[in-house]
Amino acid sequence: MIERVPNGLLVVLSGPSGAGKGSICKLLTQDQGDISVSVSVTTRPPRQGEEEGVHYFFHSLEEFQAMLNRNEFLEHAKVHGNNYGTPRKAVEKELAAGRDVLLEIDVKGAMQVKENFPGCVMIFILPPDMAELERRIVGRASDSPETVEKRMKNAEGEIARWPDYDYVILNDKLPLAVQKTRAVIAAEKCRVDRNQGFYKQFCKEENTL
Amino acid sequence: MIERVPNGLLVVLSGPSGAGKGSICKLLTQDQGDISVSVSVTTRPPRQGEEEGVHYFFHSLEEFQAMLNRNEFLEHAKVHGNNYGTPRKAVEKELAAGRDVLLEIDVKGAMQVKENFPGCVMIFILPPDMAELERRIVGRASDSPETVEKRMKNAEGEIARWPDYDYVILNDKLPLAVQKTRAVIAAEKCRVDRNQGFYKQFCKEENTL
Repeated sequence: MIERVPNGLLVVLSGPSGAGKGSICKLLTQDQGDISVSVSVTTRPPRQGEEEGVHYFFHSLEEFQAMLNRNEFLEHAKVHGNNYGTPRKAVEKELAAGRDVLLEIDVKGAMQVKENFPGCVMIFILPPDMAELERRIVGRASDSPETVEKRMKNAEGEIARWPDYDYVILNDKLPLAVQKTRAVIAAEKCRVDRNQGFYKQFCKEENTL
Repeated sequence: MIERVPNGLLVVLSGPSGAGKGSICKLLTQDQGDISVSVSVTTRPPRQGEEEGVHYFFHSLEEFQAMLNRNEFLEHAKVHGNNYGTPRKAVEKELAAGRDVLLEIDVKGAMQVKENFPGCVMIFILPPDMAELERRIVGRASDSPETVEKRMKNAEGEIARWPDYDYVILNDKLPLAVQKTRAVIAAEKCRVDRNQGFYKQFCKEENTL
């Protein structure tokens, strides 16, 4: 029997705000030890209860800038004046240990990851329909009608980027969407192009080819 | 909510004799109504208990030749003087009804299907290792040592075609191999390139883009 400890997969879960990426992430990691959510670096100060290395890596602006200069982010963005970034090293460490890493991220960030990390699995989470998306966005916070409209406009623009992904999962029933996401991860591990090393090993160890 | 009745998938399960394709096929179709095994056309006479349209479509050599001339086979082969072929129309009828079709087939046939049916999912089933494959081949029938050797040689040649497939599944534990095959089928249905029609429908119906 050939023993394999293959690398984990970097799984990008993206889609418009309100599509349900967060819920899928939560359920995916809840009862599986071999999959974790990427922890971002941020320059914003920790809120109460937030732990270093669990919720975020809290860095000074200088540290963040230094990492940026060393090209240490898979993606980064500035939101409300604070910097956020996905640290490549932390992700690669998990992958090398055979654990999958989930990255829940907006479309802009996802496109950066796609460019910086060939081999990542790009999944687009879609709301059941735009009406339901609006209900979720309205229900989420006490936003003004203008803000809701802006979010909807933004969501439409994001949905238009769907063809840039590998997979699209319609989140009309959450357990089903989670199941499909699990299937995508399991299937990707069986892809021939991800098993070149295993192929060589199989042929060599068996001394058949 | 957008209703989808997408086409089924043609799933090619291939690999060397003794890898366990048959067992995987059996378990896959056992408790799922939405997946069926392709029924071949053959020119050999029915054996006892074999039913037309269930085990095979039994055709005369003339009928078979006429189908061949009309290019009605996804693949065909002559084995021990008898002709066998996979009828395109029967497969397409199942797919159009939204049912997946499994095709359990050797490497030569699989390569024909790959050429004749773009969009099929090509899965290579691998034995745990060559020693186990030999045990299975020896245990299967009262073959002479020469026949076993020939089968092993043949298996080695088939395993070398692994890179021509989309997925490779190591059949060391049957339930796990079945689970992986199921995951591949579920994942393929989420592929963006298989959901172009759905995308247009989503954008159009919602009138958002």
